[in-house]
Amino acid sequence: MAMDPDAVAKAFVEHYYRTFDTNRAALVSLYQDTSMLTFEGQKLQGPAAIAGKLGSLPFQHCEHQIVTVDCQPSGPQGGMLVFVSGSIRTAPDEHPMKFSQAFHLMPAGNSFYVQNDMFRLNYG
Amino acid sequence: MAMDPDAVAKAFVEHYYRTFDTNRAALVSLYQDTSMLTFEGQKLQGPAAIAGKLGSLPFQHCEHQIVTVDCQPSGPQGGMLVFVSGSIRTAPDEHPMKFSQAFHLMPAGNSFYVQNDMFRLNYG
Repeated sequence: MAMDPDAVAKAFVEHYYRTFDTNRAALVSLYQDTSMLTFEGQKLQGPAAIAGKLGSLPFQHCEHQIVTVDCQPSGPQGGMLVFVSGSIRTAPDEHPMKFSQAFHLMPAGNSFYVQNDMFRLNYG
Repeated sequence: MAMDPDAVAKAFVEHYYRTFDTNRAALVSLYQDTSMLTFEGQKLQGPAAIAGKLGSLPFQHCEHQIVTVDCQPSGPQGGMLVFVSGSIRTAPDEHPMKFSQAFHLMPAGNSFYVQNDMFRLNYG
């Protein structure tokens, strides 16, 4: 069954940020040993380090709003680049902060894992 | 000779935006037939279409300011993901606009070409 890349990207993005906002620890399952996260310039590798970083962010609750999702196939290995812009609010009374995030998804069976993940706040 | 990926990314970014700001038509040489650009959601493929789009942007002069450059190796084929945030000013009296851009560079001889390019303005 051929997949529509834009539909896959949209489904991944919805799953990722919904999981982030409701059960952040479960994001660990999206990463493998070779996976890399660069978070505001800090480099981490592997599920434990990446989930540890995401779990240590200094807020308990957050809410992502997605503004744009772009995707492109990344090459013959079946990977996909997903490029997101949006905003994140870390407390009900806080102003949302704009962010951009780039994912490189690689196939794993019938699904994908995150090989590359780069996150930046866009200070306004 | 082993290359420092961060140094390669920084050199690419400086070259790309300097060329964009001084000789935009020369960007065509960075793309190959399989190259893809998604520019504000519009999808283009191949050097002619991509250079045509960049050349048709409705400003003659522009100035990019780079704020952050992140990079990660993209896989066993020697590719590299480069994730940029910054601002662009399209006229001396205009406010700069924030943007984010993700590149997937692939090796080509002793250099790299742009396999994937995704650009978004981050409206403030």
